[in-house]
Amino acid sequence: MRKLYSAQALLGWDLHAHMPKKAAPFRSQVIAKLATMAFELAVSDELGGFIEELEKNDDLSEIEKRSIRHVARDYRRHKAVPPEFVKEVSEARSSAQSTWTQAKAASDFASFKPYLEKNVELARRYADYLGFEDHPYDALLEDFEPGMTCEQLSGIIEPLKEDLVPFLAKLMESGTHPDPSPLKGSFDLDAQRKLARRSLEIILYDFDAGGLTDVTHPFTTTIGPGDIRVTNRYAEDHLGPGLFAALHEGGHALYNQGFSNDLYALGVAGGASNGIHESQSRMIENQIGRSLPFWQGFQPVLAEYFPQFAQTSPELLHGAANIVAPSLIRVEADEVTYNFHIMLRFELEAGLIDGSIAVADLPTLWNEAMDRYLGVAPPDDGQGVLQDIHWSMGAFGYFPSYMLGNLYAAQMLKALRTALPGLDDQIRKLEFEPLLGWLRENVHQHGGLYLPTELMERITGAPLDGTHFVEYVTTKYSELYKL
Amino acid sequence: MRKLYSAQALLGWDLHAHMPKKAAPFRSQVIAKLATMAFELAVSDELGGFIEELEKNDDLSEIEKRSIRHVARDYRRHKAVPPEFVKEVSEARSSAQSTWTQAKAASDFASFKPYLEKNVELARRYADYLGFEDHPYDALLEDFEPGMTCEQLSGIIEPLKEDLVPFLAKLMESGTHPDPSPLKGSFDLDAQRKLARRSLEIILYDFDAGGLTDVTHPFTTTIGPGDIRVTNRYAEDHLGPGLFAALHEGGHALYNQGFSNDLYALGVAGGASNGIHESQSRMIENQIGRSLPFWQGFQPVLAEYFPQFAQTSPELLHGAANIVAPSLIRVEADEVTYNFHIMLRFELEAGLIDGSIAVADLPTLWNEAMDRYLGVAPPDDGQGVLQDIHWSMGAFGYFPSYMLGNLYAAQMLKALRTALPGLDDQIRKLEFEPLLGWLRENVHQHGGLYLPTELMERITGAPLDGTHFVEYVTTKYSELYKL
Repeated sequence: MRKLYSAQALLGWDLHAHMPKKAAPFRSQVIAKLATMAFELAVSDELGGFIEELEKNDDLSEIEKRSIRHVARDYRRHKAVPPEFVKEVSEARSSAQSTWTQAKAASDFASFKPYLEKNVELARRYADYLGFEDHPYDALLEDFEPGMTCEQLSGIIEPLKEDLVPFLAKLMESGTHPDPSPLKGSFDLDAQRKLARRSLEIILYDFDAGGLTDVTHPFTTTIGPGDIRVTNRYAEDHLGPGLFAALHEGGHALYNQGFSNDLYALGVAGGASNGIHESQSRMIENQIGRSLPFWQGFQPVLAEYFPQFAQTSPELLHGAANIVAPSLIRVEADEVTYNFHIMLRFELEAGLIDGSIAVADLPTLWNEAMDRYLGVAPPDDGQGVLQDIHWSMGAFGYFPSYMLGNLYAAQMLKALRTALPGLDDQIRKLEFEPLLGWLRENVHQHGGLYLPTELMERITGAPLDGTHFVEYVTTKYSELYKL
Repeated sequence: MRKLYSAQALLGWDLHAHMPKKAAPFRSQVIAKLATMAFELAVSDELGGFIEELEKNDDLSEIEKRSIRHVARDYRRHKAVPPEFVKEVSEARSSAQSTWTQAKAASDFASFKPYLEKNVELARRYADYLGFEDHPYDALLEDFEPGMTCEQLSGIIEPLKEDLVPFLAKLMESGTHPDPSPLKGSFDLDAQRKLARRSLEIILYDFDAGGLTDVTHPFTTTIGPGDIRVTNRYAEDHLGPGLFAALHEGGHALYNQGFSNDLYALGVAGGASNGIHESQSRMIENQIGRSLPFWQGFQPVLAEYFPQFAQTSPELLHGAANIVAPSLIRVEADEVTYNFHIMLRFELEAGLIDGSIAVADLPTLWNEAMDRYLGVAPPDDGQGVLQDIHWSMGAFGYFPSYMLGNLYAAQMLKALRTALPGLDDQIRKLEFEPLLGWLRENVHQHGGLYLPTELMERITGAPLDGTHFVEYVTTKYSELYKL
């Protein structure tokens, strides 16, 4: 099965990285064929039999038991859904996605509305198939953040909101904005590519077990053990996008490069959850890559590729890398405002799934929430409710993981700093071995063996607690904005 | 089945083009898994049933009948071989190949000998499984050159030898060697990459249905319809290898880009044979790409990428691209000496397969033949009998196609010149539309519908006749060497 997954991953990577445009129609047939073959294996009675037998076996090691729990959970979720439904979903998504692309470009919510309604209906049926105790959204969350519930999420979001809404207002009103210009200009793309490669080397990404390729939207993919590839894109007029996306994807890649080899055979060679995965990328990109010690170490490296930075102070670069600005678009949001984009999506999604919100009301509700959280008003739906691809893909329940990643990361980083009191000095010297060693030991090697909560308890001795993130973000930006 | 083949082709392409080294062990498992799945489909009773039914159907079109003939032939050849034998061959090849790599590096024939003996034995058993009328080698030839026999090959080779051996001697003794230096020097690799891309554009290779990537050993691969990829490598000190390999692979790629789309569904989207495929690459590389009209058109293009050629005469470049020199290594051989390398391999292979030659005698026989045909003496077996990978792969019967490609191409080019009297002028203007149009119409669109002989009869009104090649090569080189 994992051999088929490997071929599928390569087909997907190639589609974005190298496939010529005339290959597209046949490629989608190849991908569909392999997906069908893989699905047949994933729900096969043979696999079900193995699972039942192993679940009864008391002689298994702790790791083997966790592996069975993981594999059984996936198997039963796959089995819970009738094959006809899988086909119906796949077709609905396919039409919804192509309609969404056009609707977004034309800022035409009305044309997308029936497709989104269909996707919502399918997501509700999906939740029914899988079952849930409290809220149907819990069943969807399970695909991305096992064990997380709507209620827990609300419990995390409320205090976060109470702290961050006023903090953002204070920053914007009384803060002194850093100068964004040092990272702007005109930057040779090939030199940016080399810089991205170098930054990946610095964070100890293993190029003998991966590679870096240009694409339109960066992603990281596991083709197989020893083959975790990073992709990236560059902006000609700004160093930020190319550099921080490389660090972000590099963070994901370090996680997957750090799985113990036996996890592949045990079927748990994935992260603990999307949120834990995102914690690794956001820690490297933001909490490390946008820290002052990093820029103190990285400024001379930057100057090797762009000599115009030879005399630029690390403090100036650090400031330019940390501009806070309430904005319309999630993927461009900074550390302070990012979570607000998620909160509003979570509220809308939960309402769509429990039926308390109608698709027709989304544009209005979206704009109201943008005003409430961020004080901005989308000029059209293309920059508002239509901005993300996720709903066209039927991926309800996905967004919260992006926010959880920030929170997990802040809490982990606190434990990490206790274990490594010299961390800032090491980062300043671009010595990433201790940091990576800690992450390998505490996070990476375990792959999908632990649930997110179990992992956080193991690492930090406590379940997820958003106050660590609030502390991190308010301290950092109070200083940067001279509050 | 062709969807699995597509995934396999991509896995193979990626292995040479992008795969990181630590991915190798798992990749070979993925490739083996997909090969097994594809083989199971290729010999399935379901496919056999379809074939039998269609063979009885009289209402098929001419094209459908040819398609069935082709598919049935492949099916029966696959079925003729027991699965255990396929596995035995695959394992033997795998060990033979890794041993060969080391044996070649160490010029140690003795260590390779038992593996080669095993491969020869397996090839003889393979011939027995498939059956043959006259010579066991005929059964092997069928995989590469359907319809060709040992006897026919000898009938083609003998007169060729009689003409070319004395011609080579005359060239070497009485000819004036062109100056090889114009294409030598130090050439930026990235500019060479761009030049290769440009040459592919000139010959009308469609980049929207393909791509160009660096590898160690150039090849062309069909990932699927609309996706025919070329790979290449470059020598820092010589423009020839990168440029002519691009034209060579481009010739193969034009063939595959030219198949009618319905040939894919009909299962005949391959060339008519390896030899016909090679005729397309060698026509573009040598008979066009190393012609004076081409260099008259190409010299200004070359100067765009390498300004040092702005004042170089096309005649000088043409001369440098056509140096004849008897040498030890087949893949570096020129148009005049190349076929000798094949003749000697054919003689040895036929003898190994019919048992008249023992593996132990190969090094001596090899060196004797090199002296007889080319007047050169390998200093060691690494540069002699161990130079090619083919025997380690058990690919007996493959070499003749390389030679046949040259002969097919010369005969086609003669018909082509009759149809397009303005060909040289068009090439001089780098107008490849008429040439490609003729090849599309007469060769490419038919894919694997015709046997090589049928195709040659269709195009030239006659079966393969080596005298066209002799005429081409003696005229061209008599002029170049001022005989």
